[in-house]
Amino acid sequence: MPDRPETDAPEDAPQDVPRGAQLSRTDRSRLRRSHARGSFDRDVVNAILDAQPMCSVGYVIDGRPYVTPTLQWREGDRVYWHGSSASRALRASREAEVCLTVAILDGYVMARSGFHHSVNSRSVMLFGRAQLVPDAEKEPRLCAFVDRLWPGRAAMLRPNTETERKATTLLSMPIAEGSAKVRSGPPVDEPEDYALPLWAGVIEVQTRATGLTPDPRNAPGLTPPDHLRHFRPVG
Amino acid sequence: MPDRPETDAPEDAPQDVPRGAQLSRTDRSRLRRSHARGSFDRDVVNAILDAQPMCSVGYVIDGRPYVTPTLQWREGDRVYWHGSSASRALRASREAEVCLTVAILDGYVMARSGFHHSVNSRSVMLFGRAQLVPDAEKEPRLCAFVDRLWPGRAAMLRPNTETERKATTLLSMPIAEGSAKVRSGPPVDEPEDYALPLWAGVIEVQTRATGLTPDPRNAPGLTPPDHLRHFRPVG
Ligand SMILES: Cc1cc2nc3c(=O)[nH]c(=O)nc-3n(C[C@H](O)[C@H](O)[C@H](O)COP(=O)(O)OP(=O)(O)OC[C@H]3O[C@@H](n4cnc5c(N)ncnc54)[C@H](O)[C@@H]3O)c2cc1C
Ligand SMILES: Cc1cc2nc3c(=O)[nH]c(=O)nc-3n(C[C@H](O)[C@H](O)[C@H](O)COP(=O)(O)OP(=O)(O)OC[C@H]3O[C@@H](n4cnc5c(N)ncnc54)[C@H](O)[C@@H]3O)c2cc1C
Ligand code: HEM
Ligand code: HEM
Repeated sequence: MPDRPETDAPEDAPQDVPRGAQLSRTDRSRLRRSHARGSFDRDVVNAILDAQPMCSVGYVIDGRPYVTPTLQWREGDRVYWHGSSASRALRASREAEVCLTVAILDGYVMARSGFHHSVNSRSVMLFGRAQLVPDAEKEPRLCAFVDRLWPGRAAMLRPNTETERKATTLLSMPIAEGSAKVRSGPPVDEPEDYALPLWAGVIEVQTRATGLTPDPRNAPGLTPPDHLRHFRPVG
Repeated sequence: MPDRPETDAPEDAPQDVPRGAQLSRTDRSRLRRSHARGSFDRDVVNAILDAQPMCSVGYVIDGRPYVTPTLQWREGDRVYWHGSSASRALRASREAEVCLTVAILDGYVMARSGFHHSVNSRSVMLFGRAQLVPDAEKEPRLCAFVDRLWPGRAAMLRPNTETERKATTLLSMPIAEGSAKVRSGPPVDEPEDYALPLWAGVIEVQTRATGLTPDPRNAPGLTPPDHLRHFRPVG
């Protein structure tokens, strides 16, 4: 539930040109409900994308929707994802309209009525045409993907073979049309409900790295590299 | 990357009738890639749905895909979700084809080549027509939603008003067409790469409740109810 009962925002004309550090407000991306917590701010969008590699990519086959869990990474004002060149998801997304969504759950918001329960969360929905990343750009982009997760690791890896590069498809999309939505804080109940003798509040939730499991087949004497020390799966 | 390089599975004829405790293998849900880790087993699917309320619902408006983060809950062989009766997502999903996807990240799998990096994860993709839950069923279903998260809480809440019930739409879908996919364990590298002097293994990742933040407006003297004690956001 939103903080306050609200009516839909009035229709404004779609604005296709990004204004400064804002994503464009189009008919597709304009938040109609709970707009008080919505944002077109590029910094807010970027921070959410950077905090959670996991995303859901939506695409259409034969008029029907598909949502595939995928990993995304951001470089500047573009978002990237990758997979098998034979993947149905990537073939259906390539040069087609997609919706890429990232959602981070920060807490369960427990209110005094069912209606006012909610979650604290940060989410982004991005819309656009997924573009095929040209062959020559594959290698640097994949290295950036690895290094964003673990700085310096790309250079330590056995280099990709030509066969592996061919088997890999990269897609990307400008971060241009979309929005972020953020909710935080305690529940917002009806004024008369605050007196009820029922505990209300937030169960804080966090995703954490809980440990390292070395590959039993590691060469003897290896220790976890430095780039693992500060790894945070969700920031 | 899958454990072994593999070619696409041969096309088998779609099977529309669920076989025992299996979801139906249709052209839409048959896993083409990495099928070794795919499953149509109802118990596997149910366990993943029960472990993670957060899902991504994909739907189509004007031929274009949308993916909305939502909370789902399961009762028997149906999955449910809810929101505002005025929500664009729910209006576009209602009596229309949707894809409901749940993904749980269990670890980052670090290999000796970029190509063989992966994630350990459990995911479900469900397909079908989202059906409107009739008015008379709304109340029991919403209570079940609350009680699945926090057993016994529904009865403690201020009852829903007629206005609140009207403002709420519930959708549901049979768990009939779809699949689960699970990856676990260490990276699987090329045989000759195991000798490389680079640490490989898994960064284990878990989502946990990290604390309770009481609403500052709680009536004096309230303590967190019993139903919070065993709450696990991801099981
Ligand atoms: C973890 C999580 C769980 C949620 N659970 C539920 C639930 O169970 N029921 C429910 O009704 N809602 C839930 N929400 C909110 C939900 O994602 C939608 O924001 C809400 O349902 C409004 O949908 P709408 O289609 O009416 O939005 P509209 O405002 O009509 O959507 C218009 C545009 O606003 C933007 N937008 C809408 N939602 C989001 C978003 N979440 N993030 C970024 N941009 C957005 C998009 O650009 C979208 O195209 C949840 C959100 C999160 C992050
Ligand atoms: C957290 C997470 C991150 C991932 N990151 C990536 C990534 O970055 N790149 C990448 O290529 N893949 C990634 N995957 C795997 C991805 O979700 C797909 O399984 C994979 O891309 C194959 O897609 P496809 O369309 O070729 O599958 P196909 O096998 O052609 O799909 C056919 C059917 O198989 C089933 N299916 C496919 N994938 C899944 C799934 N994940 N869960 C349940 N059922 C499924 C569905 O019923 C689908 O309709 C990730 C998975 C998870 C859970
Ligand atoms: C040089 C870097 C990389 C290359 C060349 C590469 C290549 C590939 C290819 C070709 C696939 C398709 C596998 C198949 O379905 O047959 C794939 C899938 C995948 N990749 Fe990568 N990848 C790279 C880096 C990474 C990294 C760093 C991660 C994660 C941290 C990752 C995670 C995944 C996942 C999760 C899949 C899906 C596997 C599945 O279907 O179960 N990749 N990658
Ligand atoms: C009796 C039980 C419930 C009723 C009647 C109900 C009703 C509603 C309604 C009407 C909305 C739409 C709000 C709007 O956009 O105007 C909504 C949104 C939502 N509900 Fe519920 N709900 C119930 C229980 C819950 C529970 C238990 C949770 C979570 C634990 C929850 C989480 C949410 C979330 C996250 C939203 C989205 C709010 C947003 O758009 O930011 N609801 N609910």
